Amino acid sequence: MIYDIIIIGGGPAGITAGIYGARQNLKILLITKSFGGQVAEKAVAIENYPGFEEILGKDLIEKFENHLKKQKVEIKLDEVLEIKKSNSLFLVSTKNKKDIQAKTIIIASGADSRVLNIPGEKEFLGKGVSYCAVCDGILFTNKTVAVIGGGNAGFESAILLSNYVKKIYILEYGSEIKADRINQQILRKTNKAKIMTNVALQKIVGKEFVESIIYQCLKDGKQKTLFVDGVFVQIGKNATTSFVKDLVEFNKQNEIKVKFETFETKTPGLFVAGDANVGQYKQIITACGEGAKAALSAYHYIKKQ
Amino acid sequence: MIYDIIIIGGGPAGITAGIYGARQNLKILLITKSFGGQVAEKAVAIENYPGFEEILGKDLIEKFENHLKKQKVEIKLDEVLEIKKSNSLFLVSTKNKKDIQAKTIIIASGADSRVLNIPGEKEFLGKGVSYCAVCDGILFTNKTVAVIGGGNAGFESAILLSNYVKKIYILEYGSEIKADRINQQILRKTNKAKIMTNVALQKIVGKEFVESIIYQCLKDGKQKTLFVDGVFVQIGKNATTSFVKDLVEFNKQNEIKVKFETFETKTPGLFVAGDANVGQYKQIITACGEGAKAALSAYHYIKKQ
Repeated sequence: MIYDIIIIGGGPAGITAGIYGARQNLKILLITKSFGGQVAEKAVAIENYPGFEEILGKDLIEKFENHLKKQKVEIKLDEVLEIKKSNSLFLVSTKNKKDIQAKTIIIASGADSRVLNIPGEKEFLGKGVSYCAVCDGILFTNKTVAVIGGGNAGFESAILLSNYVKKIYILEYGSEIKADRINQQILRKTNKAKIMTNVALQKIVGKEFVESIIYQCLKDGKQKTLFVDGVFVQIGKNATTSFVKDLVEFNKQNEIKVKFETFETKTPGLFVAGDANVGQYKQIITACGEGAKAALSAYHYIKKQ
Repeated sequence: MIYDIIIIGGGPAGITAGIYGARQNLKILLITKSFGGQVAEKAVAIENYPGFEEILGKDLIEKFENHLKKQKVEIKLDEVLEIKKSNSLFLVSTKNKKDIQAKTIIIASGADSRVLNIPGEKEFLGKGVSYCAVCDGILFTNKTVAVIGGGNAGFESAILLSNYVKKIYILEYGSEIKADRINQQILRKTNKAKIMTNVALQKIVGKEFVESIIYQCLKDGKQKTLFVDGVFVQIGKNATTSFVKDLVEFNKQNEIKVKFETFETKTPGLFVAGDANVGQYKQIITACGEGAKAALSAYHYIKKQ
């Protein structure tokens, strides 16, 4: 059995690639650990996917998943470990199966939360340290939390957390806040957040659970302590692409280089859509658009062979 | 009054650009003749916009339009006649107003139906000749029609027309059908269509209304006649971009050249999203993705100034 396309990933990019590939009557296998990617974890309602004025991440991804499952696409809940190319075929090995054959590959495996790599971060994971406000926010009802990162993800997490917690500190390493202005306005209205720039988190401290954090003020070099019950780390993402090696080129965030019209990598027949590529815009709607383009590129590639 | 962005066009690309720009609190003017672009004219239900398993074009565009109108975006129903750049500002002139100022421009003006330029085409417009099956299909109930063009647009038009008409001829100039395989299957099942390749339509004939067409068989050069009551022309689109001149570079279809990551043209601050640019993929979801990227690019451009 040789598939026309193996799609790796079940977020917006992978799902859209599946819908588009299926409409070309291609033989498609979609491999994913789970559906939804980061959308399922979105801290606030999604208001920027055209057609839905306001929708929860889990509801949008359910619609996406149902849409995909109406198509002729084979779906395997599994984890990809390696991709090789042998002659003109790709060989995909997963936890459960070795060397599944395909004419083309679309990597749509998204990105994982970046870690701080500071003392206390690993030790207190699940004991005050979290990477997902929508998963864990409610556990901090009436408590004080720190959100690390002043981008959209940090602000959206803080906006969600404001429904539960008493007080939020946002710690941003840089000298300016990068979150959308609308997110900054919404958070300001909650009157619960204190925003700090030019600060570097150094250590998470506690006994059984998180009790405080130690940070350095980058302007004067002084160390200070904040008493918090929780730490939400939102300092960006690293592309989930370790299963592919010398077939592609990476940047420092493990994102894969592509041509931006076709989303093809340096290896013909190998495409990358969504957060796993080097594109600077990481939105649901842009991931969907790239998924469609990658699938149509794969279709043209197959037709030419 | 200087706008941050003037968006030209009210289809998927322009609407998404509006939603994204508004979320950055930018001052936005969207100018369009009408909402919907080609989506409103789609001949069959849309099944490939993720999140909606099946939706009529007019219903999807209504959702898009409502979504846009929830944002802080000024909307003018008007027609753009000219764009100039003077120092660092763009000047947009419409039918109703001269030299509206903006820091950036997003062209999302889509494409118009390409015409055949053969005798009878203009004369019988609205008298049997149409470029929109969803608009005019019902007028041909129990009649015989020709669809010119064997791409997706032609097949989708034919699928819709099969609900009304007795018989459909599809005339394709090339030697192969380019429509998605799924569209070919669906049409075949109607048992109403005859598909002809390697044929060139030469003339549309009639008295008050269309009565027949004359075509040339490209293989043997012979001229033949088909008796039809209607002719639906679906031979592609030309980008609607005549209002912008030397600020950009065009290809033969009047599509504007862009960098595919940012969608910026050769003029800094001038972006093109959707069918008006040279991108090879012309889908609703890809137009939306490009609209979002163009708006975020415009935002970054403004911030840097």
